Amino acid sequence: MDLNVLFKITYGLYVVGAASGSKMNGYISNTVFQVTSDPPQFAVASHKNNYTTEIIKEGKAFAISILRQDYDPDIIGTFGYRSGRDMEKFANFTYKTGKTGAPVLLKDTAGWLECEVVNSFDLGTHILFIGNLVDCESIDDAVEPLTYNYYHAVKKGIAPRNSPTYIDPRKLKTFPPKV
Amino acid sequence: MDLNVLFKITYGLYVVGAASGSKMNGYISNTVFQVTSDPPQFAVASHKNNYTTEIIKEGKAFAISILRQDYDPDIIGTFGYRSGRDMEKFANFTYKTGKTGAPVLLKDTAGWLECEVVNSFDLGTHILFIGNLVDCESIDDAVEPLTYNYYHAVKKGIAPRNSPTYIDPRKLKTFPPKV
Repeated sequence: MDLNVLFKITYGLYVVGAASGSKMNGYISNTVFQVTSDPPQFAVASHKNNYTTEIIKEGKAFAISILRQDYDPDIIGTFGYRSGRDMEKFANFTYKTGKTGAPVLLKDTAGWLECEVVNSFDLGTHILFIGNLVDCESIDDAVEPLTYNYYHAVKKGIAPRNSPTYIDPRKLKTFPPKV
Repeated sequence: MDLNVLFKITYGLYVVGAASGSKMNGYISNTVFQVTSDPPQFAVASHKNNYTTEIIKEGKAFAISILRQDYDPDIIGTFGYRSGRDMEKFANFTYKTGKTGAPVLLKDTAGWLECEVVNSFDLGTHILFIGNLVDCESIDDAVEPLTYNYYHAVKKGIAPRNSPTYIDPRKLKTFPPKV
Protein backbone atom coordinates (compact mmCIF):
# COMPACT_ATOMS: atom_id res chain seq x y z
CA MET A 1 0.00 0.00 0.00
CA ASP A 2 1.37 3.35 -1.01
CA LEU A 3 -0.12 5.82 1.47
CA ASN A 4 1.30 8.78 -0.47
CA VAL A 5 -1.86 8.55 -2.55
CA LEU A 6 -3.84 9.88 0.41
CA PHE A 7 -2.33 13.32 -0.23
CA LYS A 8 -4.24 13.35 -3.52
CA ILE A 9 -7.60 13.49 -1.76
CA THR A 10 -8.86 17.07 -1.71
CA TYR A 11 -10.03 18.89 1.42
CA GLY A 12 -10.58 22.43 2.63
CA LEU A 13 -9.63 23.82 6.03
CA TYR A 14 -12.19 25.03 8.52
CA VAL A 15 -12.63 26.18 12.10
CA VAL A 16 -15.36 24.09 13.70
CA GLY A 17 -16.84 25.83 16.75
CA ALA A 18 -19.24 24.76 19.48
CA ALA A 19 -20.63 26.05 22.76
CA SER A 20 -22.55 24.67 25.71
CA GLY A 21 -23.27 26.60 28.92
CA SER A 22 -20.07 28.42 29.84
CA LYS A 23 -17.94 26.21 27.56
CA MET A 24 -16.92 27.40 24.11
CA ASN A 25 -14.24 26.02 21.84
CA GLY A 26 -13.18 25.39 18.28
CA TYR A 27 -10.64 23.33 16.35
CA ILE A 28 -9.18 23.09 12.87
CA SER A 29 -10.81 20.44 10.69
CA ASN A 30 -10.33 19.38 7.10
CA THR A 31 -13.08 16.77 7.16
CA VAL A 32 -16.16 18.90 6.61
CA PHE A 33 -18.47 17.82 3.82
CA GLN A 34 -22.03 18.04 2.61
CA VAL A 35 -23.69 14.62 2.67
CA THR A 36 -27.23 15.35 1.43
CA SER A 37 -28.76 18.11 -0.62
CA ASP A 38 -32.41 17.89 0.47
CA PRO A 39 -32.32 18.86 3.27
CA PRO A 40 -28.76 20.22 3.29
CA GLN A 41 -26.86 18.13 5.83
CA PHE A 42 -23.18 18.35 6.70
CA ALA A 43 -20.77 15.88 8.27
CA VAL A 44 -17.77 16.63 10.49
CA ALA A 45 -15.38 13.96 11.81
CA SER A 46 -14.05 14.95 15.26
CA HIS A 47 -11.53 13.09 17.41
CA LYS A 48 -13.00 11.77 20.65
CA ASN A 49 -10.17 13.43 22.64
CA ASN A 50 -10.94 16.90 21.23
CA TYR A 51 -12.49 19.24 23.77
CA THR A 52 -14.76 20.58 21.01
CA THR A 53 -16.17 17.07 20.43
CA GLU A 54 -17.40 17.01 24.04
CA ILE A 55 -18.99 20.45 23.56
CA ILE A 56 -20.69 19.53 20.25
CA LYS A 57 -22.24 16.52 22.02
CA GLU A 58 -23.57 18.75 24.80
CA GLY A 59 -24.59 21.78 22.69
CA LYS A 60 -25.94 19.65 19.80
CA ALA A 61 -24.72 22.18 17.25
CA PHE A 62 -21.59 23.23 15.39
CA ALA A 63 -20.47 26.17 13.29
CA ILE A 64 -18.11 25.87 10.32
CA SER A 65 -15.98 28.84 9.32
CA ILE A 66 -14.34 28.48 5.91
CA LEU A 67 -10.81 29.88 6.11
CA ARG A 68 -9.52 32.22 3.41
CA GLN A 69 -6.33 31.29 1.58
CA ASP A 70 -4.65 34.43 3.01
CA TYR A 71 -5.43 33.46 6.61
CA ASP A 72 -3.53 34.67 9.65
CA PRO A 73 -1.26 31.75 10.76
CA ASP A 74 -2.23 32.52 14.38
CA ILE A 75 -5.61 30.98 13.59
CA ILE A 76 -4.04 27.59 12.82
CA GLY A 77 -1.62 27.98 15.74
CA THR A 78 -4.44 28.66 18.19
CA PHE A 79 -7.28 26.46 16.91
CA GLY A 80 -5.11 23.63 15.56
CA TYR A 81 -2.32 23.26 18.10
CA ARG A 82 -3.58 24.45 21.48
CA SER A 83 -6.21 23.00 23.77
CA GLY A 84 -9.33 24.91 24.70
CA ARG A 85 -9.15 23.24 28.10
CA ASP A 86 -6.30 25.68 28.91
CA MET A 87 -7.41 28.84 27.15
CA GLU A 88 -10.31 30.67 25.50
CA LYS A 89 -9.38 30.28 21.82
CA PHE A 90 -12.00 32.64 20.38
CA ALA A 91 -10.96 35.50 22.72
CA ASN A 92 -8.13 36.55 20.37
CA PHE A 93 -10.22 36.77 17.19
CA THR A 94 -13.36 38.43 15.82
CA TYR A 95 -16.30 36.06 16.13
CA LYS A 96 -20.02 36.05 16.69
CA THR A 97 -22.47 33.75 18.39
CA GLY A 98 -24.75 32.05 15.88
CA LYS A 99 -28.44 31.13 16.07
CA THR A 100 -27.57 27.77 17.62
CA GLY A 101 -25.27 29.35 20.19
CA ALA A 102 -22.16 28.01 18.45
CA PRO A 103 -19.30 30.49 17.92
CA VAL A 104 -18.65 31.53 14.32
CA LEU A 105 -15.11 32.71 13.59
CA LEU A 106 -15.33 35.82 11.40
CA LYS A 107 -11.64 36.68 11.10
CA ASP A 108 -10.19 35.56 7.73
CA THR A 109 -13.35 33.64 6.95
CA ALA A 110 -14.72 33.38 3.39
CA GLY A 111 -18.11 32.32 4.74
CA TRP A 112 -19.69 30.21 7.43
CA LEU A 113 -22.40 27.66 8.14
CA GLU A 114 -24.21 26.69 11.27
CA CYS A 115 -25.70 23.24 11.85
CA GLU A 116 -27.89 21.57 14.40
CA VAL A 117 -26.74 18.01 15.18
CA VAL A 118 -29.34 15.48 14.01
CA ASN A 119 -27.23 12.34 14.24
CA SER A 120 -23.80 11.11 15.32
CA PHE A 121 -21.92 7.94 14.47
CA ASP A 122 -19.09 6.28 16.36
CA LEU A 123 -16.18 5.55 14.02
CA GLY A 124 -13.68 4.32 16.63
CA THR A 125 -11.23 7.15 17.33
CA HIS A 126 -13.61 9.77 15.86
CA ILE A 127 -17.27 10.73 16.04
CA LEU A 128 -19.00 11.69 12.81
CA PHE A 129 -21.51 14.42 13.55
CA ILE A 130 -24.32 14.99 11.04
CA GLY A 131 -25.90 18.44 11.16
CA ASN A 132 -28.84 20.13 9.49
CA LEU A 133 -28.08 23.54 8.01
CA VAL A 134 -29.65 26.27 10.16
CA ASP A 135 -27.93 29.40 8.88
CA CYS A 136 -25.12 30.38 6.53
CA GLU A 137 -23.48 33.40 4.95
CA SER A 138 -21.00 34.03 2.18
CA ILE A 139 -18.86 36.85 3.51
CA ASP A 140 -16.95 37.27 0.27
CA ASP A 141 -17.93 35.32 -2.88
CA ALA A 142 -14.74 36.33 -4.66
CA VAL A 143 -12.20 35.21 -2.07
CA GLU A 144 -10.19 32.01 -2.49
CA PRO A 145 -10.88 29.43 0.23
CA LEU A 146 -7.89 27.75 1.85
CA THR A 147 -7.38 24.17 0.70
CA TYR A 148 -5.57 21.44 2.60
CA ASN A 149 -3.35 21.00 -0.43
CA TYR A 150 -2.30 24.68 -0.33
CA TYR A 151 -1.69 24.39 3.41
CA HIS A 152 0.64 21.42 2.79
CA ALA A 153 2.35 22.54 -0.39
CA VAL A 154 2.71 26.30 0.12
CA LYS A 155 2.51 26.77 3.89
CA LYS A 156 4.33 23.47 4.63
CA GLY A 157 1.69 22.66 7.23
CA ILE A 158 1.18 19.18 8.63
CA ALA A 159 -1.78 17.30 10.08
CA PRO A 160 -1.82 16.97 13.87
CA ARG A 161 -2.15 13.46 15.35
CA ASN A 162 -5.85 13.86 16.14
CA SER A 163 -6.70 14.58 12.50
CA PRO A 164 -8.59 11.88 10.55
CA THR A 165 -5.97 12.38 7.83
CA TYR A 166 -2.86 12.10 10.04
CA ILE A 167 -0.33 9.72 8.48
CA ASP A 168 2.69 8.42 10.34
CA PRO A 169 5.62 9.69 8.19
CA ARG A 170 7.39 6.33 8.69
CA LYS A 171 4.60 4.67 6.70
CA LEU A 172 5.15 6.87 3.65
CA LYS A 173 7.27 5.83 0.69
CA THR A 174 8.48 9.39 0.19
CA PHE A 175 8.54 12.13 2.82
CA PRO A 176 7.82 14.97 2.59
CA PRO A 177 5.04 13.92 0.20
CA LYS A 178 4.66 15.71 -3.10
CA VAL A 179 1.47 17.76 -2.98
CA MET B 1 -29.39 31.92 4.25
CA ASP B 2 -26.96 32.57 1.45
CA LEU B 3 -26.35 29.18 -0.15
CA ASN B 4 -23.62 30.58 -2.39
CA VAL B 5 -21.29 29.93 0.55
CA LEU B 6 -21.57 26.18 -0.13
CA PHE B 7 -19.38 26.67 -3.21
CA LYS B 8 -16.56 27.59 -0.82
CA ILE B 9 -16.41 24.08 0.62
CA THR B 10 -13.58 22.17 -1.01
CA TYR B 11 -13.93 18.74 -2.61
CA GLY B 12 -12.11 16.54 -5.09
CA LEU B 13 -13.69 14.47 -7.87
CA TYR B 14 -13.56 10.71 -7.93
CA VAL B 15 -14.92 7.65 -9.69
CA VAL B 16 -16.40 5.32 -7.08
CA GLY B 17 -16.65 1.75 -8.40
CA ALA B 18 -18.27 -1.41 -7.09
CA ALA B 19 -19.02 -4.95 -8.24
CA SER B 20 -21.15 -7.86 -7.12
CA GLY B 21 -21.66 -11.07 -9.09
CA SER B 22 -22.15 -10.05 -12.71
CA LYS B 23 -22.93 -6.43 -11.79
CA MET B 24 -20.28 -3.74 -12.03
CA ASN B 25 -20.72 0.01 -12.01
CA GLY B 26 -19.23 3.32 -10.99
CA TYR B 27 -20.29 6.94 -10.56
CA ILE B 28 -18.74 10.36 -10.08
CA SER B 29 -18.55 11.48 -6.47
CA ASN B 30 -17.13 14.54 -4.78
CA THR B 31 -17.94 13.39 -1.25
CA VAL B 32 -15.05 11.07 -0.52
CA PHE B 33 -13.32 11.66 2.80
CA GLN B 34 -10.95 10.03 5.22
CA VAL B 35 -12.73 9.87 8.57
CA THR B 36 -10.19 8.11 10.81
CA SER B 37 -6.45 7.66 10.68
CA ASP B 38 -6.00 4.51 12.79
CA PRO B 39 -7.18 2.39 11.07
CA PRO B 40 -7.52 4.41 7.86
CA GLN B 41 -11.27 4.57 7.16
CA PHE B 42 -12.98 6.42 4.32
CA ALA B 43 -16.53 7.71 3.89
CA VAL B 44 -18.52 8.00 0.67
CA ALA B 45 -22.05 9.50 0.47
CA SER B 46 -24.06 7.77 -2.28
CA HIS B 47 -27.60 8.55 -3.42
CA LYS B 48 -30.06 5.73 -2.74
CA ASN B 49 -31.22 5.83 -6.38
CA ASN B 50 -27.71 5.28 -7.74
CA TYR B 51 -27.18 1.84 -9.23
CA THR B 52 -23.69 1.80 -7.69
CA THR B 53 -25.20 2.23 -4.20
CA GLU B 54 -27.11 -1.03 -4.65
CA ILE B 55 -23.92 -2.76 -5.78
CA ILE B 56 -21.79 -1.40 -2.90
CA LYS B 57 -24.40 -2.80 -0.48
CA GLU B 58 -24.21 -6.23 -2.12
CA GLY B 59 -20.46 -6.33 -2.79
CA LYS B 60 -19.55 -4.71 0.56
CA ALA B 61 -16.63 -2.86 -1.03
CA PHE B 62 -15.83 0.20 -3.10
CA ALA B 63 -12.89 1.54 -5.07
CA ILE B 64 -12.04 5.24 -5.32
CA SER B 65 -10.14 6.50 -8.35
CA ILE B 66 -8.78 10.03 -7.95
CA LEU B 67 -9.22 11.88 -11.24
CA ARG B 68 -6.37 13.94 -12.71
CA GLN B 69 -6.96 17.60 -13.49
CA ASP B 70 -6.36 16.88 -17.18
CA TYR B 71 -9.04 14.16 -17.32
CA ASP B 72 -10.87 13.03 -20.44
CA PRO B 73 -14.37 14.65 -20.32
CA ASP B 74 -15.82 11.33 -21.51
CA ILE B 75 -15.16 10.02 -17.99
CA ILE B 76 -17.50 12.59 -16.43
CA GLY B 77 -19.99 12.13 -19.27
CA THR B 78 -20.11 8.37 -18.80
CA PHE B 79 -19.76 7.93 -15.04
CA GLY B 80 -21.58 11.12 -14.04
CA TYR B 81 -24.45 11.41 -16.50
CA ARG B 82 -25.37 7.92 -17.68
CA SER B 83 -26.88 5.00 -15.83
CA GLY B 84 -25.07 1.72 -15.44
CA ARG B 85 -28.46 0.00 -15.64
CA ASP B 86 -28.34 0.67 -19.42
CA MET B 87 -24.65 0.21 -20.22
CA GLU B 88 -21.34 -1.16 -19.01
CA LYS B 89 -19.57 2.08 -18.03
CA PHE B 90 -16.11 0.62 -17.43
CA ALA B 91 -16.03 -1.09 -20.86
CA ASN B 92 -14.84 2.11 -22.56
CA PHE B 93 -11.89 2.79 -20.25
CA THR B 94 -8.78 1.13 -18.84
CA TYR B 95 -9.53 -0.38 -15.45
CA LYS B 96 -8.55 -3.28 -13.25
CA THR B 97 -10.33 -5.44 -10.71
CA GLY B 98 -9.05 -4.79 -7.20
CA LYS B 99 -8.48 -7.16 -4.28
CA THR B 100 -12.06 -6.65 -3.12
CA GLY B 101 -13.47 -7.29 -6.59
CA ALA B 102 -14.36 -3.61 -7.05
CA PRO B 103 -13.36 -2.05 -10.39
CA VAL B 104 -10.58 0.54 -10.23
CA LEU B 105 -10.58 3.09 -13.06
CA LEU B 106 -6.99 3.54 -14.25
CA LYS B 107 -7.52 6.00 -17.10
CA ASP B 108 -6.63 9.58 -16.08
CA THR B 109 -6.30 8.51 -12.47
CA ALA B 110 -3.71 10.07 -10.13
CA GLY B 111 -4.08 7.18 -7.72
CA TRP B 112 -6.67 4.89 -6.22
CA LEU B 113 -7.89 3.32 -3.00
CA GLU B 114 -9.92 0.25 -2.28
CA CYS B 115 -12.08 -0.16 0.80
CA GLU B 116 -14.08 -2.91 2.45
CA VAL B 117 -17.39 -1.63 3.83
CA VAL B 118 -17.43 -1.88 7.63
CA ASN B 119 -20.46 0.30 8.32
CA SER B 120 -23.20 2.24 6.56
CA PHE B 121 -25.49 4.98 7.80
CA ASP B 122 -28.85 6.08 6.42
CA LEU B 123 -28.87 9.86 5.90
CA GLY B 124 -32.28 10.13 4.19
CA THR B 125 -31.67 10.53 0.45
CA HIS B 126 -28.11 9.16 0.71
CA ILE B 127 -26.26 6.28 2.36
CA LEU B 128 -22.91 7.02 3.97
CA PHE B 129 -20.63 4.04 3.48
CA ILE B 130 -17.64 3.68 5.79
CA GLY B 131 -14.82 1.55 4.43
CA ASN B 132 -11.54 0.19 5.78
CA LEU B 133 -8.56 0.74 3.49
CA VAL B 134 -7.54 -2.58 1.90
CA ASP B 135 -5.22 -1.44 -0.88
CA CYS B 136 -4.05 1.79 -2.51
CA GLU B 137 -1.57 3.09 -5.06
CA SER B 138 -0.24 6.47 -6.09
CA ILE B 139 0.05 6.21 -9.87
CA ASP B 140 1.74 9.57 -10.25
CA ASP B 141 2.81 11.60 -7.18
CA ALA B 142 3.48 14.69 -9.26
CA VAL B 143 0.15 14.96 -11.05
CA GLU B 144 -2.46 17.53 -10.01
CA PRO B 145 -5.72 15.96 -8.80
CA LEU B 146 -8.98 17.36 -10.15
CA THR B 147 -10.84 19.51 -7.65
CA TYR B 148 -14.56 20.22 -7.64
CA ASN B 149 -13.72 23.92 -7.69
CA TYR B 150 -11.65 23.50 -10.89
CA TYR B 151 -14.47 21.46 -12.43
CA HIS B 152 -16.92 24.31 -11.71
CA ALA B 153 -14.72 27.30 -12.44
CA VAL B 154 -12.63 26.11 -15.38
CA LYS B 155 -14.67 23.30 -16.92
CA LYS B 156 -18.04 24.97 -16.13
CA GLY B 157 -19.29 21.64 -14.81
CA ILE B 158 -22.36 21.36 -12.61
CA ALA B 159 -23.49 18.92 -9.94
CA PRO B 160 -26.14 16.41 -11.04
CA ARG B 161 -29.34 16.18 -8.98
CA ASN B 162 -28.28 13.02 -7.15
CA SER B 163 -25.15 14.72 -5.79
CA PRO B 164 -25.06 15.52 -2.05
CA THR B 165 -23.90 19.01 -3.10
CA TYR B 166 -26.59 19.68 -5.72
CA ILE B 167 -28.13 23.13 -5.17
CA ASP B 168 -31.30 24.29 -6.90
CA PRO B 169 -30.09 27.36 -8.88
CA ARG B 170 -33.32 29.20 -7.92
CA LYS B 171 -32.17 29.13 -4.29
CA LEU B 172 -28.91 30.92 -5.05
CA LYS B 173 -28.48 34.67 -4.65
CA THR B 174 -26.19 34.83 -7.65
CA PHE B 175 -26.05 32.32 -10.46
CA PRO B 176 -23.74 31.17 -11.86
CA PRO B 177 -21.92 31.22 -8.52
CA LYS B 178 -18.44 32.67 -8.34
CA VAL B 179 -15.99 29.84 -7.69
